[in-house]
Amino acid sequence: MGTLINNTLTVLPADQGHSVGRHDIYIDGNAIAGIDSAPAGFDATETIDGTRLLAIPGLINAHTHTYMSMMRNVADDLSFADWLFGTIEPIEDKLEPRDSYWGSLLAQVEMIRSGTTCFNDMQMHIHQTTQAVCESGMRAVICRGLVGDTYDRADRRIAEALEERDAFADCDRLTFRLGPHAPYSCGPEYLRLIADVAREEGMGIHIHIAESQTESDNMWRDHNCTPVEYVCDAGIFDAPTIAAHCIRVNESDRAILAEHNVSVVTNPASNMKLGNGFAPVPELVEAGVNVCLGTDGAASNNAQNMFRELGLLALVHKGTHDTPQCVSASEALDMATRNAALALDLPCGSIEVGKKADLALLDLDAPSLTPCNNPVAGLCYSVTGSEVDTVIIDGKVVMRNRELLTIDEERVRFEIARICQRLGLS
Amino acid sequence: MGTLINNTLTVLPADQGHSVGRHDIYIDGNAIAGIDSAPAGFDATETIDGTRLLAIPGLINAHTHTYMSMMRNVADDLSFADWLFGTIEPIEDKLEPRDSYWGSLLAQVEMIRSGTTCFNDMQMHIHQTTQAVCESGMRAVICRGLVGDTYDRADRRIAEALEERDAFADCDRLTFRLGPHAPYSCGPEYLRLIADVAREEGMGIHIHIAESQTESDNMWRDHNCTPVEYVCDAGIFDAPTIAAHCIRVNESDRAILAEHNVSVVTNPASNMKLGNGFAPVPELVEAGVNVCLGTDGAASNNAQNMFRELGLLALVHKGTHDTPQCVSASEALDMATRNAALALDLPCGSIEVGKKADLALLDLDAPSLTPCNNPVAGLCYSVTGSEVDTVIIDGKVVMRNRELLTIDEERVRFEIARICQRLGLS
Repeated sequence: MGTLINNTLTVLPADQGHSVGRHDIYIDGNAIAGIDSAPAGFDATETIDGTRLLAIPGLINAHTHTYMSMMRNVADDLSFADWLFGTIEPIEDKLEPRDSYWGSLLAQVEMIRSGTTCFNDMQMHIHQTTQAVCESGMRAVICRGLVGDTYDRADRRIAEALEERDAFADCDRLTFRLGPHAPYSCGPEYLRLIADVAREEGMGIHIHIAESQTESDNMWRDHNCTPVEYVCDAGIFDAPTIAAHCIRVNESDRAILAEHNVSVVTNPASNMKLGNGFAPVPELVEAGVNVCLGTDGAASNNAQNMFRELGLLALVHKGTHDTPQCVSASEALDMATRNAALALDLPCGSIEVGKKADLALLDLDAPSLTPCNNPVAGLCYSVTGSEVDTVIIDGKVVMRNRELLTIDEERVRFEIARICQRLGLS
Repeated sequence: MGTLINNTLTVLPADQGHSVGRHDIYIDGNAIAGIDSAPAGFDATETIDGTRLLAIPGLINAHTHTYMSMMRNVADDLSFADWLFGTIEPIEDKLEPRDSYWGSLLAQVEMIRSGTTCFNDMQMHIHQTTQAVCESGMRAVICRGLVGDTYDRADRRIAEALEERDAFADCDRLTFRLGPHAPYSCGPEYLRLIADVAREEGMGIHIHIAESQTESDNMWRDHNCTPVEYVCDAGIFDAPTIAAHCIRVNESDRAILAEHNVSVVTNPASNMKLGNGFAPVPELVEAGVNVCLGTDGAASNNAQNMFRELGLLALVHKGTHDTPQCVSASEALDMATRNAALALDLPCGSIEVGKKADLALLDLDAPSLTPCNNPVAGLCYSVTGSEVDTVIIDGKVVMRNRELLTIDEERVRFEIARICQRLGLS
């Protein structure tokens, strides 16, 4: 049983960036089994005519909080304090666990529709995003958000993280990490405990670091160090770590991140929107750090569309550095695919034999891809995400001709409307 | 004969920004004839159910070069010299007039599909963009690009500009301005001539000013003044002027622009992409300048999608100014609608009785508008443009249920492919 995508314009990985040409892609089970030549015994149960399609690796949203998507456009153009303490936290206090299921499913609708096949999530309510992923067919890394101050082996949140990992061991599209929230919300003993658990359990870490100037200022005031140093000193970086934001990281911080193979997720929309500025992406790359791309949650973005983010990533650093040669389209695409797969330790992120079959097929007849002079540039500078016609995740078609096959969108809208009504939103 | 849009969520102008509520919109002929109450003798020949739609004023792209859209994604991540002299100009040298017709039509497909109803164009070949506008049903301001060095009353390009204006006097969706290209491509005598012709003919001006640091440096070296001062001294600002870019404008320049009622068009994607930085939009607003929004041509953007631009506009200045309260969603929307109508002296840009019926209707069931907590924020921070379902320009439905009614898209793709083949592009 397999799927053949015939004669499709395909973005393949190359040593220096990407190569683009027409290829036949053979998918067997959940993996890419052949490019241009069928694997032995291949039997196509479905053939997709790729003549007017552009095949790309599914995008990987390396940092988000999917449960928050019902908070889209509720708190905009506000100071950080009014945003977080005045609006978002009071809503979060009223959220019930099941709300997170519907919130995550809504985010997954938006992600699949715009070509994202995998996401790295920091969550609040266990068994909700996970359940939604089981049903949607997406690939995800799930991280229970952890907040605390002591070295307490009986910590409730860590126990929940491990319990959820065990409960969903059967779904091989799911992997789990520990999610210490941030240096300002986790004491050094708590971070040390998480580092110990991560080592014992063989788990990776997902954390926010150095998102704002205030965070850095307070860290200097209270601990006489940078947020990166604080997290590093607690032993967190001894586990494979993904750090979101890293906006306020100096040269020494960047060397620490590189030395410990910490992957950094930049979230340009969220960072600008909250007035936090721009992560030093070119400087992080220069230091040897593996940089990935994420949307962050819908409360601060307010979309879950990685093409929107890809456009920002490829543009803003050219603006801040006054050069058109900063963060090329090809580098940006890597940050949204290959680099993220490396960071998450997942066998996806590129169209290669042996990799998981996570693909997005874009409509080459869309005006934004007409003419298709340079598809990789087009993905960053022209495309909106709505060109995505068909999405395959783990070998399974989850969207065909823009029709979602795994999620009942009308039901999602209905439930989100009910939740918003209860929360006093729209 | 009229159109009624029933019970639609509508973005209306308000003293402080916008108000949003459910309304009935009555369109009679080419104008908005009533909101909530039918005008006398109104007879609806078409009724659009607006229950699941969001009605907004059609967006106005206040600076572009539509003929360039076949140059989308041909020259990316290059130095300015390699971009312009190495790639774009050699392609332009091979362009035939009819190529501009198809290039403009392709740009208009992308603009209509993403909710833009009007654009301000600086062109190369006369009778091409104009002809395309006549057929597409869009509203446009057409400016013949003018380059020269002398005060020559027989100047060929100025004669062409006037000839074209006269030839298309019958199409009341078209208006015309003179388009002196830039201070670095127009000598002071030539600018003086254009200012004289503008005064005599009662025409406005559309010009690029202060796009790059190099332009400013050269102006100081050669003329000991800023680009704004140079253009002002030539008398250009005595005519109603729209100035694109204005990135390198100091406090004194901003005061000059405000004093002469010059409207500035910011083009964030193009400015970042070419490494030119960010226009000082908050400072221009502070100085009292009317700021509008544009895409610039597809050679430097590489899209013609005003929603993409709106997102950039509402985000980048928050990033550069380290505050989430800089250029609000409401201000950004004004720059893409009302401010542009003011700059172009056109009776559109807002949903008000008496204004031209230029509207975009967005699908409220799109994930990016679910939930629709704050539609104005959603337009800037979530929407991609693909949510646009129906577009009405000058009272006429030009796109219904995402089907373009005025342009044969397949033919456009076919002709663009032929042009690209001849030009040696994709």
